[in-house]
Amino acid sequence: MKQLKVIKIGGKLIEDEGKLADFLNDFAKLKGPKILVHGGGNMATEIAGKLGYETKMVDGRRITDENSMAVITMVYGGLINKNIVAKLQNRNVNAIGLCGADGKAIVSKKRPVKEIDFGFVGDIENINSEFILNLLEQGITPVFSAISYSETGELFNTNADSVASEIAVAMSKEMETELLYCFEKKGVLADIDNETSIIEKIDAEEYQSLLEQKVISDGMLPKLHNCFQAIEKGVQTVRLGDMHLLRPESKHTKILSS
Amino acid sequence: MKQLKVIKIGGKLIEDEGKLADFLNDFAKLKGPKILVHGGGNMATEIAGKLGYETKMVDGRRITDENSMAVITMVYGGLINKNIVAKLQNRNVNAIGLCGADGKAIVSKKRPVKEIDFGFVGDIENINSEFILNLLEQGITPVFSAISYSETGELFNTNADSVASEIAVAMSKEMETELLYCFEKKGVLADIDNETSIIEKIDAEEYQSLLEQKVISDGMLPKLHNCFQAIEKGVQTVRLGDMHLLRPESKHTKILSS
Repeated sequence: MKQLKVIKIGGKLIEDEGKLADFLNDFAKLKGPKILVHGGGNMATEIAGKLGYETKMVDGRRITDENSMAVITMVYGGLINKNIVAKLQNRNVNAIGLCGADGKAIVSKKRPVKEIDFGFVGDIENINSEFILNLLEQGITPVFSAISYSETGELFNTNADSVASEIAVAMSKEMETELLYCFEKKGVLADIDNETSIIEKIDAEEYQSLLEQKVISDGMLPKLHNCFQAIEKGVQTVRLGDMHLLRPESKHTKILSS
Repeated sequence: MKQLKVIKIGGKLIEDEGKLADFLNDFAKLKGPKILVHGGGNMATEIAGKLGYETKMVDGRRITDENSMAVITMVYGGLINKNIVAKLQNRNVNAIGLCGADGKAIVSKKRPVKEIDFGFVGDIENINSEFILNLLEQGITPVFSAISYSETGELFNTNADSVASEIAVAMSKEMETELLYCFEKKGVLADIDNETSIIEKIDAEEYQSLLEQKVISDGMLPKLHNCFQAIEKGVQTVRLGDMHLLRPESKHTKILSS
């Protein structure tokens, strides 16, 4: 079975030109098929602000209205995505920048309205792994922005961690897939105030125990949930770390299947 | 030889939601391989204005500075491009949205600085017809925004008419290619104030004579130049018309080889 790496990078890494260049150097050096997934975070909020669009929040949760979705499509789907593709081409990586509508790669359904209507937010229902596989077989590196496509013809904002995880799950049926989350921390920390307290390996049992001990902080909960979901659904390897995660010597957290 | 249609649509068609929907219905009905090329025009200027970016002009010509290029990448490469792709998927056209950096499809060089430095503006040097052909053979419809890639790793603003014409020229070596320009008029008019005075056929000789008689207005000059360049370089058919150009009954101008 061929190997594949699915790598997700977050907002803070994208916003720092120097860090992004360093990361893309590491990414370009990776041999074999690979997929990059990116969010955008603060850049969209900043541009929405400049355009005079208010960020709507209900119960502390962000609502994606029509204006926000337009900004996300501009910033994630255009500005960030196409610039990453250009920088990768410049590093001899034959990249193409995609959102979920392209080749119907990521199909979602509007998040059901219960107490809150999140607006243009979609939960992933299908990944077109045949389309992605086809690109990879041609030596092309897909770069995905976290935008999905709904069968109603709309674009939806979708959590970038979930995009990476769902792509990895779908591809794991075809290839031996490694899912890598690059974020601000070096991994899951035993002590949130101590950057060196990296927990090097976590299995499902230890995850439960860490949850009970409340070692895992709020921000980490959805990320770890995605990691274990990916492992349970067949992704062969999941790792969490900082922007140096692609380097063989990096300290990080590895998620183990039980 | 297989047939291919390369269709360029302009800013005013894109900005009108209803007209765009009508056009995309016609486009979706076209059988066989096809490529869509779009500009964006006023939408970028409008968003740049809202963001507080000034449109720089020198001698009446627009300069693409760093901020303008960012807006173009957002608006052309993201907002317009990805929404067209979503609307096409919704019409059962398996589209993917691309700029010149994707698959190094459109490679350009910064326009040489003579009297004016146009900034981030590129003149096309190469079209990766192999990459485009590969997509078409998989039944995929490429949708190109008018952004090219420079080997320096930068994205450049590029005239959408030229993008369409250069793609058509490159593809005409592989397929029997028809280039269609959809714009505001029904074609080249013998009398600019009379919308029904469409010149149905123009060859190079008549083009020269129209130029001498100054029948062709300023805005039409670069468009017709692109048309005749395309024909001279091997494009099998070139047509100019309005948003209904894809309908068999449309009145329009056909460019003839001499």
